[in-house]
Amino acid sequence: MRVKSVGFVANDFLTVKKTSRPEIPRKAIYRLSIYLRCLHRLKTNGIRTVASEALAAAAGVKSTQLRKDLTYFGQFGTRGLGYDVQQLAILISDVLGTTRLQPVILVGVGNLGSALLSYRGFQQEGFEVVAAFDQFSENKRSRKFTTPVLAMDKVPEIVRKHRVKMALLTVPPEAAQEVANTILAAGITGILNFSTITLQVPEEVVVNNVNLAIELENLSYFIQQ
Amino acid sequence: MRVKSVGFVANDFLTVKKTSRPEIPRKAIYRLSIYLRCLHRLKTNGIRTVASEALAAAAGVKSTQLRKDLTYFGQFGTRGLGYDVQQLAILISDVLGTTRLQPVILVGVGNLGSALLSYRGFQQEGFEVVAAFDQFSENKRSRKFTTPVLAMDKVPEIVRKHRVKMALLTVPPEAAQEVANTILAAGITGILNFSTITLQVPEEVVVNNVNLAIELENLSYFIQQ
Repeated sequence: MRVKSVGFVANDFLTVKKTSRPEIPRKAIYRLSIYLRCLHRLKTNGIRTVASEALAAAAGVKSTQLRKDLTYFGQFGTRGLGYDVQQLAILISDVLGTTRLQPVILVGVGNLGSALLSYRGFQQEGFEVVAAFDQFSENKRSRKFTTPVLAMDKVPEIVRKHRVKMALLTVPPEAAQEVANTILAAGITGILNFSTITLQVPEEVVVNNVNLAIELENLSYFIQQ
Repeated sequence: MRVKSVGFVANDFLTVKKTSRPEIPRKAIYRLSIYLRCLHRLKTNGIRTVASEALAAAAGVKSTQLRKDLTYFGQFGTRGLGYDVQQLAILISDVLGTTRLQPVILVGVGNLGSALLSYRGFQQEGFEVVAAFDQFSENKRSRKFTTPVLAMDKVPEIVRKHRVKMALLTVPPEAAQEVANTILAAGITGILNFSTITLQVPEEVVVNNVNLAIELENLSYFIQQ
């Protein structure tokens, strides 16, 4: 089995979570998200404690990896008893900053942006798209969304009002850098970039790239064998 | 700048592309997709040749990385002249298997599946969603799609008829493994897995995982600093 999964990489060490967290690797944070989802499923199934081996197997990692990841933010679990499912879920959620609904904006209501606006799954996972932005704002559109679609000049106001830090960037590649500059100037510090260009951003800004077509192309290559 | 990008990792060597390609690393294949998009943009802008330094800069990699990646499938570019934009684009497209429109199926027409079905970007990138499948097939749905939504028992027929090898899996986590087993039995060999579980699949099957909520959570962690 070849799995390009969110996880499975070496890591550093961090004991105090929010005050000095520069050392924890991105891959470990991805694994926390996976553990959290496994814990949610366990909880749904009425399971209250879980052995590290069982949780690791559900997440597709080795139990040594799981234990190492969890030591980043303190030591949990009782030998022979395992982890308290609910307690661990709350702790991970707190580390990830998803204990409360987080506001995000979506910029670029074209093809993919429209699809994502009609996707209600973000809210279930703790993220609320408070507004969308496009060069063609709401009045000129045929399709209506429950999320307001505003003109780009409203970005600073909305970002300030809702204290938004994260943006989904779904504009065409030729517009992506300019739009990124605009939203960063408004106070955005994290971008989920769906455009296919490599964004140039300041040191303190975080960019995660998602490209569905590239994921398909990658599959396409490997299944040709 | 911290960028979790598709790329930037060490790699192995491969000279003959389709006959013996086991050694080429996944990260290099991701980079080919990025190079291809840069080349498309150059072509659109009427640029016919490009120096490796310029192409590498556009793709956000070092030129040594670019040259190394391209040697995987032969040696290109003329010293002092650079790469022929169109020729290199065709070659990369051929390596990735996207010179012709590739059929894919989508399984699970819920929240995210519906959003992806209304996304027309796949076709632009060389992939055609020939059919979607759901336990609730077309007749019981209010929303209509241009792609047919069929019952799960039609998977083998469609996969055979269109010679489909790839599937987008957008079912809930509790159903994902069972559905994966079904589509693999029908002949699918590559899965773009949007569910949050780690799929157990045979050695020869390729799984790429995509989870938008996890990407947002990951951003959420890093912007808390």
